[in-house]
Amino acid sequence: MSSSPALLIRGGTVVNADREFAADVLCLDGKIAAVGARAAAEAPAGCQTLDASGQYLLPGGIDPHTHMQLPFMGTVTMDDFFTGTAAGLAGGTTSIIDFVIPNPQQPLMEAYQTWRGWAEKSAADYGFHVAVTWWSESVHADMGRLVQEEGINSFKHFMAYKNAIMCDDETLVNSFKRALDLGAMPTVHAENGELVYLLQQEVAKMGITGPEGHPLSRPPMVEGEAANRAIAIAEVLGVPIYIVHVSCIEAAEAIARARARGQRVYGEVLAGHLLIDDSVYRHPDFATAAAHVMSPPFRPKIHQDFLWRGLQSGQLHTTATDHCTFCAQQKAAGLESFAKIPNGCGGIEERMAVIWDAGVNSGRLTPSEFVAITSTNAAKLFNLYPRKGLIAEGSDADLVLWDPQGSKTLSAKTQHSKGDFNIFEGRTVRGIPSHTLSQGRLVYVQGDLRAEPGRGRYLKRPAFGPNFAAAQARAQDLAPTAVAR
Amino acid sequence: MSSSPALLIRGGTVVNADREFAADVLCLDGKIAAVGARAAAEAPAGCQTLDASGQYLLPGGIDPHTHMQLPFMGTVTMDDFFTGTAAGLAGGTTSIIDFVIPNPQQPLMEAYQTWRGWAEKSAADYGFHVAVTWWSESVHADMGRLVQEEGINSFKHFMAYKNAIMCDDETLVNSFKRALDLGAMPTVHAENGELVYLLQQEVAKMGITGPEGHPLSRPPMVEGEAANRAIAIAEVLGVPIYIVHVSCIEAAEAIARARARGQRVYGEVLAGHLLIDDSVYRHPDFATAAAHVMSPPFRPKIHQDFLWRGLQSGQLHTTATDHCTFCAQQKAAGLESFAKIPNGCGGIEERMAVIWDAGVNSGRLTPSEFVAITSTNAAKLFNLYPRKGLIAEGSDADLVLWDPQGSKTLSAKTQHSKGDFNIFEGRTVRGIPSHTLSQGRLVYVQGDLRAEPGRGRYLKRPAFGPNFAAAQARAQDLAPTAVAR
Amino acid sequence: MSSSPALLIRGGTVVNADREFAADVLCLDGKIAAVGARAAAEAPAGCQTLDASGQYLLPGGIDPHTHMQLPFMGTVTMDDFFTGTAAGLAGGTTSIIDFVIPNPQQPLMEAYQTWRGWAEKSAADYGFHVAVTWWSESVHADMGRLVQEEGINSFKHFMAYKNAIMCDDETLVNSFKRALDLGAMPTVHAENGELVYLLQQEVAKMGITGPEGHPLSRPPMVEGEAANRAIAIAEVLGVPIYIVHVSCIEAAEAIARARARGQRVYGEVLAGHLLIDDSVYRHPDFATAAAHVMSPPFRPKIHQDFLWRGLQSGQLHTTATDHCTFCAQQKAAGLESFAKIPNGCGGIEERMAVIWDAGVNSGRLTPSEFVAITSTNAAKLFNLYPRKGLIAEGSDADLVLWDPQGSKTLSAKTQHSKGDFNIFEGRTVRGIPSHTLSQGRLVYVQGDLRAEPGRGRYLKRPAFGPNFAAAQARAQDLAPTAVAR
Amino acid sequence: MSSSPALLIRGGTVVNADREFAADVLCLDGKIAAVGARAAAEAPAGCQTLDASGQYLLPGGIDPHTHMQLPFMGTVTMDDFFTGTAAGLAGGTTSIIDFVIPNPQQPLMEAYQTWRGWAEKSAADYGFHVAVTWWSESVHADMGRLVQEEGINSFKHFMAYKNAIMCDDETLVNSFKRALDLGAMPTVHAENGELVYLLQQEVAKMGITGPEGHPLSRPPMVEGEAANRAIAIAEVLGVPIYIVHVSCIEAAEAIARARARGQRVYGEVLAGHLLIDDSVYRHPDFATAAAHVMSPPFRPKIHQDFLWRGLQSGQLHTTATDHCTFCAQQKAAGLESFAKIPNGCGGIEERMAVIWDAGVNSGRLTPSEFVAITSTNAAKLFNLYPRKGLIAEGSDADLVLWDPQGSKTLSAKTQHSKGDFNIFEGRTVRGIPSHTLSQGRLVYVQGDLRAEPGRGRYLKRPAFGPNFAAAQARAQDLAPTAVAR
Repeated sequence: MSSSPALLIRGGTVVNADREFAADVLCLDGKIAAVGARAAAEAPAGCQTLDASGQYLLPGGIDPHTHMQLPFMGTVTMDDFFTGTAAGLAGGTTSIIDFVIPNPQQPLMEAYQTWRGWAEKSAADYGFHVAVTWWSESVHADMGRLVQEEGINSFKHFMAYKNAIMCDDETLVNSFKRALDLGAMPTVHAENGELVYLLQQEVAKMGITGPEGHPLSRPPMVEGEAANRAIAIAEVLGVPIYIVHVSCIEAAEAIARARARGQRVYGEVLAGHLLIDDSVYRHPDFATAAAHVMSPPFRPKIHQDFLWRGLQSGQLHTTATDHCTFCAQQKAAGLESFAKIPNGCGGIEERMAVIWDAGVNSGRLTPSEFVAITSTNAAKLFNLYPRKGLIAEGSDADLVLWDPQGSKTLSAKTQHSKGDFNIFEGRTVRGIPSHTLSQGRLVYVQGDLRAEPGRGRYLKRPAFGPNFAAAQARAQDLAPTAVAR
Repeated sequence: MSSSPALLIRGGTVVNADREFAADVLCLDGKIAAVGARAAAEAPAGCQTLDASGQYLLPGGIDPHTHMQLPFMGTVTMDDFFTGTAAGLAGGTTSIIDFVIPNPQQPLMEAYQTWRGWAEKSAADYGFHVAVTWWSESVHADMGRLVQEEGINSFKHFMAYKNAIMCDDETLVNSFKRALDLGAMPTVHAENGELVYLLQQEVAKMGITGPEGHPLSRPPMVEGEAANRAIAIAEVLGVPIYIVHVSCIEAAEAIARARARGQRVYGEVLAGHLLIDDSVYRHPDFATAAAHVMSPPFRPKIHQDFLWRGLQSGQLHTTATDHCTFCAQQKAAGLESFAKIPNGCGGIEERMAVIWDAGVNSGRLTPSEFVAITSTNAAKLFNLYPRKGLIAEGSDADLVLWDPQGSKTLSAKTQHSKGDFNIFEGRTVRGIPSHTLSQGRLVYVQGDLRAEPGRGRYLKRPAFGPNFAAAQARAQDLAPTAVAR
Repeated sequence: MSSSPALLIRGGTVVNADREFAADVLCLDGKIAAVGARAAAEAPAGCQTLDASGQYLLPGGIDPHTHMQLPFMGTVTMDDFFTGTAAGLAGGTTSIIDFVIPNPQQPLMEAYQTWRGWAEKSAADYGFHVAVTWWSESVHADMGRLVQEEGINSFKHFMAYKNAIMCDDETLVNSFKRALDLGAMPTVHAENGELVYLLQQEVAKMGITGPEGHPLSRPPMVEGEAANRAIAIAEVLGVPIYIVHVSCIEAAEAIARARARGQRVYGEVLAGHLLIDDSVYRHPDFATAAAHVMSPPFRPKIHQDFLWRGLQSGQLHTTATDHCTFCAQQKAAGLESFAKIPNGCGGIEERMAVIWDAGVNSGRLTPSEFVAITSTNAAKLFNLYPRKGLIAEGSDADLVLWDPQGSKTLSAKTQHSKGDFNIFEGRTVRGIPSHTLSQGRLVYVQGDLRAEPGRGRYLKRPAFGPNFAAAQARAQDLAPTAVAR
Repeated sequence: MSSSPALLIRGGTVVNADREFAADVLCLDGKIAAVGARAAAEAPAGCQTLDASGQYLLPGGIDPHTHMQLPFMGTVTMDDFFTGTAAGLAGGTTSIIDFVIPNPQQPLMEAYQTWRGWAEKSAADYGFHVAVTWWSESVHADMGRLVQEEGINSFKHFMAYKNAIMCDDETLVNSFKRALDLGAMPTVHAENGELVYLLQQEVAKMGITGPEGHPLSRPPMVEGEAANRAIAIAEVLGVPIYIVHVSCIEAAEAIARARARGQRVYGEVLAGHLLIDDSVYRHPDFATAAAHVMSPPFRPKIHQDFLWRGLQSGQLHTTATDHCTFCAQQKAAGLESFAKIPNGCGGIEERMAVIWDAGVNSGRLTPSEFVAITSTNAAKLFNLYPRKGLIAEGSDADLVLWDPQGSKTLSAKTQHSKGDFNIFEGRTVRGIPSHTLSQGRLVYVQGDLRAEPGRGRYLKRPAFGPNFAAAQARAQDLAPTAVAR
């Protein structure tokens, strides 16, 4: 990759997760070369300069939960790794962590290689969580190779989707144990798949086939149960755990309970779950209702308050999108049955703006807390910090100039994502990116998206992040002793 | 069965779950014919009289959790239905609910008939919970027949014992739903069997093969997780649920959380878990340590306090024993590996005395609360009330004269159970039965046990007990509506 | 008082807190003389008969929280002890427990005698809680006299109403300790009066003077804090405690937490809080909005669900009304300032019907549970059981024939209370009393109210009810020991 | 103050709250001039160099809770501001926040000036919390002056110590509201003073006069109640709150509950409460037992686990000592009555080492988490960050070279504090400071303490720290609206 030109950003307010301060920032060779007074002094002659006065300078967003180019029912999601990451850059997100999802019985390494190939066209940096969808000695072995050779430090487990990619408890227990030994973080999609399966049939028996049946088949307790189960397994084994897309009080409370016991449990919230409620499923237009079908579903409003509170108090840690775009034609596969509607919504482009608008403008979050939940915490949890998630000398020059007064009305018509729907349609937000830098390059400049396929790099993530020091010592500490008889 | 002679009990203090009051009690034809002033007036000429002055008159105890004559590894427990129920009578327990446990793939009806045959020799009245250990259309059908024709109104599910009788979530979900439709109570042995299975291996890898490995392989969270899961499934389906042998804070808290949501969840506690802690597993003598191996295991003392509190506050409801006696020779099957020690302890004879001593003498419980948790609540939950669990005109004449000043030192040497061990060995209790009546007959008189094989009757228990009125109405209330598109 | 005529009630279904059963009931001399087959047999010749077929026979309701004839700001509430208790009889409530409220510095005995005088005209039986509104040696002494000579076994403490009857912590602590020693139950109105006082001023500063300011000045946490505080004080001292009019999640959770620790804490809910939400305070008509002003205020709907759940699960125990009727003219005292609106609403006549309609018809409660929360639990907690709260031989013949199909639309126009407003106006309920008996007399017969002033009797309530056995033993158990130095 | 010499620290591992990294650090003029490669490059010629290889470089500890030179009962604590801060430097603590405690009725400004005078001899930088011990218009005014002119941004409230400095709820409510308006943090000593007062008398009545009576008079629920109350008041008013010396489960749970609601609540833990249990009060030697008398008292061991878990999970935030040294002769004032033993223990010198040893060596905490709870979090909460609590260019050169292999046995004989007792006596710790720098000067070098009186500076702390942005916006958001009538 050719080196990026030098760039001096002047007059902005740097916002890191720990504090805000006024400082110039110099980018050189894709990295941050200096922050503060020294930046201007060290800028090479003729260096390009960007005026950031009146703007915040944020670490580029990290979306730790996306599904680009996901193969599904003989087709794939609308956004591939290029269009999806490009949409992210337009919204201030400069890194993603996507998912390798092997079919049951498929070797993990094989699936991993396939996804690596698809991702080569990415416009932004990317990593992968690898899903464990079945269990065998070979899965055990491949997990080791992925961690030790390929820079994978997190594994995903689907507790729902029976007869497809659902993990049973046997797989969960074995995989969590293996992850612990490897220093990798287990993550779960928490929904009790057996309950969902039964409820889908029960709801259908009541004569409900439309999208309004979707949330009825996945009530909050279905998620709360699974979250509690995964957390309990992790506690017993002594491994940290990360719960993806926490959408409801029941799951958030399971996390809070565990954290109160001192357990290292982390929760992710989707932008959509923070802002959209379940009334969308009762929209009279099928396409609109179906466009919101994702799992866990959007919830009654009271859950939104609880999720915000979790982010405020540090009980929930990251924000993501589960970006997974199916168009109206794809969604129509479920016209006769909500259970057949492809699950997924977009959002990578809107995440940072909608969270800033609803979170910072309302006073729920300080700008530093916003940075923590959109970038820094994900970087720390998945061991990309301080390369990502921080504005400091030596970090990657992934930056967003954030205009707190800039305003924009979100719409499918103007979005860069290839999806044909926008779950935030019509929402006007205040606080938007004016410029995005990826690896020191200006890739988004006031509406002008300059994403290039293949510019993104695969991010190797080392195992045994900070959470594991404690886990290892604790394991040691608890080792029991045999009684002499 | 020939009719029992008339008996007038004079001068005692009747204790029911709602109150205490001084009253004479007349028993005629196996039933209570009169309570109060009228009792003496209506006593037939020459009626036998029993002086109960200074004593309490309690409804006969109900032990809702026993395993008499349980086949196991080619042998059976020491107590059969005669010796086990006889031991119960000696301790003031006049009814048991035992378990029919089909092997996986065995028809439920077949197992049921087998157990009915074994139980014919019972000295006291008995009923059965039937275990659902697998799932098929025939299981679904047999559940219906058992409820509608055989008077079974509760089904048991083992969430532990992998590769044996463990239910997976699919079976749990289907069986709970079926139970709801039939008006029968699902019950669970709550331990995550996959975790136990892994931990047994991990503990063995650490070189621990003795009984001290048993509790290490079944930590409290293993139970808490399973309790929470079963409760969540029950909540989603709208069926009441009963958790057997709650042994730890984690499970009791899962129950309390659910009850705070208004859910109809009930918890049972074993006498042993209230009084014995996990130090027994570290006893230097293998036989002694192994004699305490049961699941869930005895816990650190702090859990005992919490269980007592649950009984005091009505968060936990019944007390039982899980009476399941294996002798030293049988326990020795696990000399090389704790995982092979047959699980089970006795206690049916001691339950009422040890709970009175530790519960009533200490002021934790009033005598009425003692009656509730040793008899009345079980009768209500399993729809035997007011036939059992109450001293009132028309109820069965199953009664205990309880001598609050009587004292006794418990020991395997003096017990009536055929087991060769007593988990309460050496404990001196104050408050013991002086006389027990079953069906109006004096079957235990101050140390003289007069139990007779075959005197016990099978108790048909009707479906749709009081808890189901609400469940049915609630289900109705929550029925969702399709959106017109 | 002349004896009441004999009355045989035939063909009804008796509902007690523990069960339902078909039985005739014979009333003689104000008491229940027989229940069941014997009732007809023992009925005197020419005994009046009442056909109860198709109806339930319930123990008369007990409203443990009323304010009849309450002096306030130079006037008194609209209902005196006659009209108020008569309204109760029309609604199936046959006993009340009202409040003696001394002014600060007024001797308790003096206030008590005053209230006793006022209550002589009662049409139904009555008792009193006595409020402790200040502290001194004489208060300490009068508490003893009230308990030991006057049959008072409960004391009330207002944690709100600063500069009036508010207790500070010093008084709370001393009075709770004294109540423990006397075997009397402390009860509290739980709101932090200092916060209310400040918030009233803050809300006024915002320019809000209308009734909509009332709930703003008393948010749920104000109640939750006070409930938690009173419960904590009771726990430290080892005395049972009863929280009146629990209106919100925060307070109900404080109770649930304490109960989970095994503490003997009891909660009362008002019919109004179960069914009315805080939107009433934003009614454009001042009189309507003001008519709903009471404390704690009505709450957002989510709190109602939680209160119902508390009643279902046994975390909350009694239902009451806080019946305290001020007319529109009296309420107009607060035209310029919500803080000056006399606090109080009616409801004694509607309580049982609205709770049956919303509780039993919906399946939330069984009829037995309804009896528990409208009658039996109050009788037990305040030591009137089994004289009140039970249909059994020997109990007072306070009975309601409850017509589950009877229907009625509630309205101020048709109510018997002298208030000019009905907080349940326009609500149609199914399930109403057809006949009420007090002391064996028919005092309400299908719309015909036959209440007579002076028929009600003062109920002496003995100290050291069942809850205190445990409290005393526990106190003993915890006695610490000095270290020998 | 003359400028400090340049110092280059080479080869160490810098530990900040967000991460660890190997870097050189250059100190110039009392500040950190460079971190990383640039440090050596920019070091002035002849600059002193310190080899930190094998050592961690930590931000100097901040003890946010000390009482130096506290006047008490006509005497003062053994450590004055010089000896106390010097002892801190020996242990790696380079800043303290002490307390100005006015007598009731004493003007706050007057007390403040007195304490400022006493503190001039400090060897390390210092700030003050000012206690609000009474309420009046002048207190209201002085709070404003302290915040706006004197750099005070936190106010302390004692909820215990009746008849002395105890705040009643009226003062709490008014002071919290005033603090909110000023952008200052309210803090509380959470114990219900009325309960303590009663219990002291009750314990004495039982004949217990020795130090073992101290914990009996202050059980955990006394603290839990007060914590919950202060937090509730803060929530209602919308102000952040900080609970000092959280010592028990009950208080930690009150914090966790509030944080789960999204409230900005912060908790401090003392080193002593993490490591010492209540058995010390039963020591047969009065002097030893009395030396441990402080409030809240040391607790049963189970509470220690819970506090550690709170620190691990971010529910608790800072560690302190409440350093307040009374000698044996002073403690003897309570020979006849535990209630007269001066409350207080030392610890400023040992805090960092004992927490490292029990926290980091055991795997409970990472080194970064250790820095957070011993320094960074206090700096952030009290708005001293990034001047304190961070190793970065521009921060004060308050640094500790931490030798993770260094070991030491703690003892009163070797301590620098003037107290005559050490609550950690005999404890051997691994992980100790080898060098401490204050303002860039080496003030402690491998056992050689070079503290100088008067070198410490008063730290002005600005109001409206980050927590207040949210509080202000939230207040705005909740502003209600009057109904038009």
